[in-house]
Amino acid sequence: MSEKIFSRATGTEAKANDFVLADVDYAMAHDGTSILAVKAFKEMEVEKVWDPERIVIPFDHIAPANNETAAGLQHEIRDWIQEQQIPNFYEVGEGICHQVLPENGFALPGKLVVGADSHSCTYGAFGAFATGVGATDMAEIFAAGKLWFKVPESIRMTVEGELGEGVYAKDLTLYLIGKTGIAGATYKALEFYGPAISGLSVSGRMTLCNMAIEMGAKSGIVPPDGKTFEFLKNREAEPFDPVYADPDASYVKEVTYDAGDIEPQVACPHQVDNVKPVGELEGTHVDQVFIGTCTNGRLEDLEVAAGILKGKKVAVRTIVIPASRSTLLAAIENGTMQTLLKAGVTLSTPGCGPCLGAHQGVLGEGEVCVSTANRNFRGRMGKGGFIYLASPATAAASALSGEITDPRTV
Amino acid sequence: MSEKIFSRATGTEAKANDFVLADVDYAMAHDGTSILAVKAFKEMEVEKVWDPERIVIPFDHIAPANNETAAGLQHEIRDWIQEQQIPNFYEVGEGICHQVLPENGFALPGKLVVGADSHSCTYGAFGAFATGVGATDMAEIFAAGKLWFKVPESIRMTVEGELGEGVYAKDLTLYLIGKTGIAGATYKALEFYGPAISGLSVSGRMTLCNMAIEMGAKSGIVPPDGKTFEFLKNREAEPFDPVYADPDASYVKEVTYDAGDIEPQVACPHQVDNVKPVGELEGTHVDQVFIGTCTNGRLEDLEVAAGILKGKKVAVRTIVIPASRSTLLAAIENGTMQTLLKAGVTLSTPGCGPCLGAHQGVLGEGEVCVSTANRNFRGRMGKGGFIYLASPATAAASALSGEITDPRTV
Repeated sequence: MSEKIFSRATGTEAKANDFVLADVDYAMAHDGTSILAVKAFKEMEVEKVWDPERIVIPFDHIAPANNETAAGLQHEIRDWIQEQQIPNFYEVGEGICHQVLPENGFALPGKLVVGADSHSCTYGAFGAFATGVGATDMAEIFAAGKLWFKVPESIRMTVEGELGEGVYAKDLTLYLIGKTGIAGATYKALEFYGPAISGLSVSGRMTLCNMAIEMGAKSGIVPPDGKTFEFLKNREAEPFDPVYADPDASYVKEVTYDAGDIEPQVACPHQVDNVKPVGELEGTHVDQVFIGTCTNGRLEDLEVAAGILKGKKVAVRTIVIPASRSTLLAAIENGTMQTLLKAGVTLSTPGCGPCLGAHQGVLGEGEVCVSTANRNFRGRMGKGGFIYLASPATAAASALSGEITDPRTV
Repeated sequence: MSEKIFSRATGTEAKANDFVLADVDYAMAHDGTSILAVKAFKEMEVEKVWDPERIVIPFDHIAPANNETAAGLQHEIRDWIQEQQIPNFYEVGEGICHQVLPENGFALPGKLVVGADSHSCTYGAFGAFATGVGATDMAEIFAAGKLWFKVPESIRMTVEGELGEGVYAKDLTLYLIGKTGIAGATYKALEFYGPAISGLSVSGRMTLCNMAIEMGAKSGIVPPDGKTFEFLKNREAEPFDPVYADPDASYVKEVTYDAGDIEPQVACPHQVDNVKPVGELEGTHVDQVFIGTCTNGRLEDLEVAAGILKGKKVAVRTIVIPASRSTLLAAIENGTMQTLLKAGVTLSTPGCGPCLGAHQGVLGEGEVCVSTANRNFRGRMGKGGFIYLASPATAAASALSGEITDPRTV
């Protein structure tokens, strides 16, 4: 799939390990990275960006601004966006970049989508080749619409069977990370196959591809199918041609797992592949629960949490942050948000929230958080904090008891 | 009214200018001040607080925590609350102290309510004598339930007539502040009378009493009436006896205004009594609008804003923060929140939000904010920012145009 996408994007026959200069279909930078990209772009003394319509800038990382510095930088980016007449600017409160791009039809099958954020691989859930780059690379794209790539080799990852009761896409993802290790797929494109993958909702596939980078992968891709096309209907920013692997496509590695083996999983501090079945951690004291992020802040995730919290009260502070404005509105429309609020959760602005430790629920020294995010590195949510990554179900069950809890027992 | 409340609270016949040691009915401290009060209390080496049921602690100022320091301090306060078995603790997300206390029936006619926050005078809207003190005074109250006061002299402020279309409690309040000046009522108790006052809703009276401190007043009091009792029904934390001024009560000053003279008002940077009719400011560029706070974050305020924004889109970033969880839920129940979200506002956690410049919408250098809050001091919402205080209607109208706008023209 990756070779086909790079062939289209270069007008050549691109093969794994080739170095190619590829045309980028969509380029994304958020408030945290666009400021650096904009500064680098200005130094290049290029007057206009290559194509304002193909640049997408959502403000999500520190949204709204948490101090004068962030506010000043955001002001500077807004001025540049206006100067460059970039139409696809999403203000604070619109949501997380990795949710906003799919919702607005920029994550499309067969496209090459590059974001100035590690978790840009999320868009692979739609059959795009999507990857993260640094801010200076992004400045190059802003100027020329092109970037050098080494076409990655591919790993075929198949998951047979189906997930059990109380086991979700996040558990599957953490399980795969535990098996693969944080460097087990370095610079590879992961292609996901099998009934457990096609059984995932679009939201579940986004959770999976979002964390491909946590195995070191350059990209994680799910072949598009009816669910993909249904999601994209009336959203697509432009026409697209899905690509699929040839039946005889060659992979550098092929691995198969069985979904039936997977229990609810938890990634323990301070490494994402430090994964254990929830049963081994039951009773661990929890100070805060955080349900949200580009990994697990979608309607489906909030619904799972609400199903567990309905009619009950959380025992510890529980921060819920919908991935986008439209997620929040949908959760209000179907009553999910009201159920969560009545259970005592703390709602905050659609965006990244405390995931990167900037605001809206930073941890104190020694505090423990069960989070539905994608990274549990030391200090990420606050110096001295301990982050356990889990599904929204495990997070909600833990919120009720104040201890890490198997969602199948509540 | 003040002499009567202090007489009851001291068991003596208290007169203006007497120094008295009064029994406090309810004592409030939030996350910002309770930490100092708790530290001072610990230094006193008193084992238990005087009465855990009469201490109320809402976390609202930095809710949720914006950094490790705030998180650590909040953790320390939570531990102390648990140790002292204080039942009336309100976690991050429950709302602003000055909203949470009335909602839970701690702001009662005839009571003496003391808060470790300048705007504790809000509770005077219910006929309480309510005032703000420093954190070490609060530690004394935690220990002994008593505090020394000089019984204030009283000013009788009467507002005849009724407010015109598009003119709200906030405009009335800013008008009175403009007329009185920031030191015009220093250490006085302001008693409010007249048809324009009794015509205000409970919410409007809270807006008015909230800003009594901005005239230097020790307290601002509205005599309780049917609206007060209706609000308090099924909320009151304990029985109460309303007090009223005697017909021949003496005042150090009596002033009368006419509500019919009042246009929408704006308090300009950087002083609260720098008040002008909105017409004099029309066209002033706006970077951010903020609708919320203990002054104007109630359901009625959100409804007024939604009425103006319905079916339209904001032109500048507009942060809306309901004063409490129950305000947010009520605004969802009646569709107000959905209208606001569809108009493009940015929702954040019930609490103080960016009012004090800690997070959730801090201003950058030179940025201008129209805010419904109570203070526009230099640097309050971010160093280098400019704050214009106005009603939710003026704020919403300005959000639509990106300029300060008379709400009667939209």
